[in-house]
Amino acid sequence: MNIDMIRAARERLDGHVRRTPLLNSPFLDEIAGRRVWVKPECLQHTGSFKFRGGWSAVSAMDPETRKRGVIAFSSGNHAQGVALAAARHGAPAVIIMPSNAPRMKIDNTRALGAEVVLYDRATEDRDEIGARLSEERGLTLIKPYDEPEVIAGQGTCGLEIAEQAAEENITEADVLVCCGGGGFASGVALALEAEAPGLRVRPAEPEGFDDVARSLISGQIERNPSLSGSLCDAIITPQPGEITFPILKRLAGPGLVVSEDEALKAVALAFSRLKLVAEPGGAVALAAALFHADEVKGDDVIATISGGNVDADVFRMALEKFGG
Amino acid sequence: MNIDMIRAARERLDGHVRRTPLLNSPFLDEIAGRRVWVKPECLQHTGSFKFRGGWSAVSAMDPETRKRGVIAFSSGNHAQGVALAAARHGAPAVIIMPSNAPRMKIDNTRALGAEVVLYDRATEDRDEIGARLSEERGLTLIKPYDEPEVIAGQGTCGLEIAEQAAEENITEADVLVCCGGGGFASGVALALEAEAPGLRVRPAEPEGFDDVARSLISGQIERNPSLSGSLCDAIITPQPGEITFPILKRLAGPGLVVSEDEALKAVALAFSRLKLVAEPGGAVALAAALFHADEVKGDDVIATISGGNVDADVFRMALEKFGG
Repeated sequence: MNIDMIRAARERLDGHVRRTPLLNSPFLDEIAGRRVWVKPECLQHTGSFKFRGGWSAVSAMDPETRKRGVIAFSSGNHAQGVALAAARHGAPAVIIMPSNAPRMKIDNTRALGAEVVLYDRATEDRDEIGARLSEERGLTLIKPYDEPEVIAGQGTCGLEIAEQAAEENITEADVLVCCGGGGFASGVALALEAEAPGLRVRPAEPEGFDDVARSLISGQIERNPSLSGSLCDAIITPQPGEITFPILKRLAGPGLVVSEDEALKAVALAFSRLKLVAEPGGAVALAAALFHADEVKGDDVIATISGGNVDADVFRMALEKFGG
Repeated sequence: MNIDMIRAARERLDGHVRRTPLLNSPFLDEIAGRRVWVKPECLQHTGSFKFRGGWSAVSAMDPETRKRGVIAFSSGNHAQGVALAAARHGAPAVIIMPSNAPRMKIDNTRALGAEVVLYDRATEDRDEIGARLSEERGLTLIKPYDEPEVIAGQGTCGLEIAEQAAEENITEADVLVCCGGGGFASGVALALEAEAPGLRVRPAEPEGFDDVARSLISGQIERNPSLSGSLCDAIITPQPGEITFPILKRLAGPGLVVSEDEALKAVALAFSRLKLVAEPGGAVALAAALFHADEVKGDDVIATISGGNVDADVFRMALEKFGG
């Protein structure tokens, strides 16, 4: 896993993946006490950065293998990213989703052309279902984060951040990245190491699901005690990945942990100040930039919004609670 | 009023105004039965295209005059655009706003450094208030649309649309522009005439406030019977401008008129499919692209989202009604 893979992924992504802008607002600067720059991956195809990794993985496959199809496990964003990437390559995609995943994410994944196989989280073993289907049809598994070509794809966002920071004359800053299994954070970290060494990745997570922050403190992989009960569903994973964690350990600054209310407040501020739709999990980095300003140093901070696939009722609730 | 003024405005805007992206979604394409491209000026500074015209007008003033300050009448978006443009030029700004304008727009205009003077729409004469203040302080009036440098600034969005359409190999398409007094539509029309003659502006308006559509039919300036009672407040004006209408008459295709519910449906779809916050008036062009597809021709249609300054309760209502 290295910068050359990220650069190669950028070549393959060129013309297929959006270069999202770098946005700001004087109102957010005032809250944080420094300049806040937002990288809105909610504007990416399928509404999250996951399309980058999906496209990278599918485009890197040899055409014969790709023709047989791909398979992925996901409750939502990775599902949609892989589904669209596969469809645009003319490859079949099977996505195994929990039957209680947000309705919109299931519907979207189907509408993007994938075959969705639902399973019951409590009674069925998704790995067994996946293994059976893969064997029957010769499908290739695309893991959501602990997969080099996926990390390479997510890293292309880091290359863009490096370029955009240079355009704004930002040479030193923390780059806050919403973090589940660490694919996004580790890809961005590798890109910044090569292209903007004054920029440092800081993983951001929701309270109670801060496995990466704790792993960075202890120096070894720590697990989350629970995997449900958060509105930040998009970035809840059992533990950092075997590939992603060593990268984060070497390159990332300390993790930042925000409350669910802080994430919802950030959702409301992205609405009012940036005119962006962020999902709660996708807003934890912005929440850290705004409400944990004392844990960040420097005149500038960069925060990713990793996704915007939020159900209307959750979004309405965020606005009702914090929309002013 | 000509293309050279728009090109000169682009020079002055460069580095200060965002080049907004051109977005799309397979889900919107399916609704419209053709490819739908969205130019999201809600992502512009101050949340609407009005910042372009504000910057253009303020930056074109001679420095001595500018130092005395500017004045504008506006219920919201023009107010914020002029306020921020003036503040960044170090010039004082007085904005005269109706006391029943959306709270958020009043607060934002103040927070952007302008002196806000509220007046009662029913009992006070805003022109008299404006004339008095202008004389007392030597302020220069920046009109919201019937002002050449403002039209030139809005036209820079048309230059971007021309470039971005070329990047996507779109050579013929209708460009649907949310239309109040016609500053945005006429500026874009002039830019497209020069840079992308296969693209044609179509003004989009809400039902009951379709003065431009009717004026284009009759060939002369027609007035709106009423000026209140619409959620599309951002684009409600008495009639097309004396400068803007002749441009639209020469260059624009027939107007498109959408219902308020169609505008709110478009707000909900911009939320779910593009992760964008559109205000109802800013969504009428997208509504026309999606729900009046039979009035548009060709494989592609381009729709502007002119602004995103919507109060949280209106947005929640749109999602409750049409957010699925």
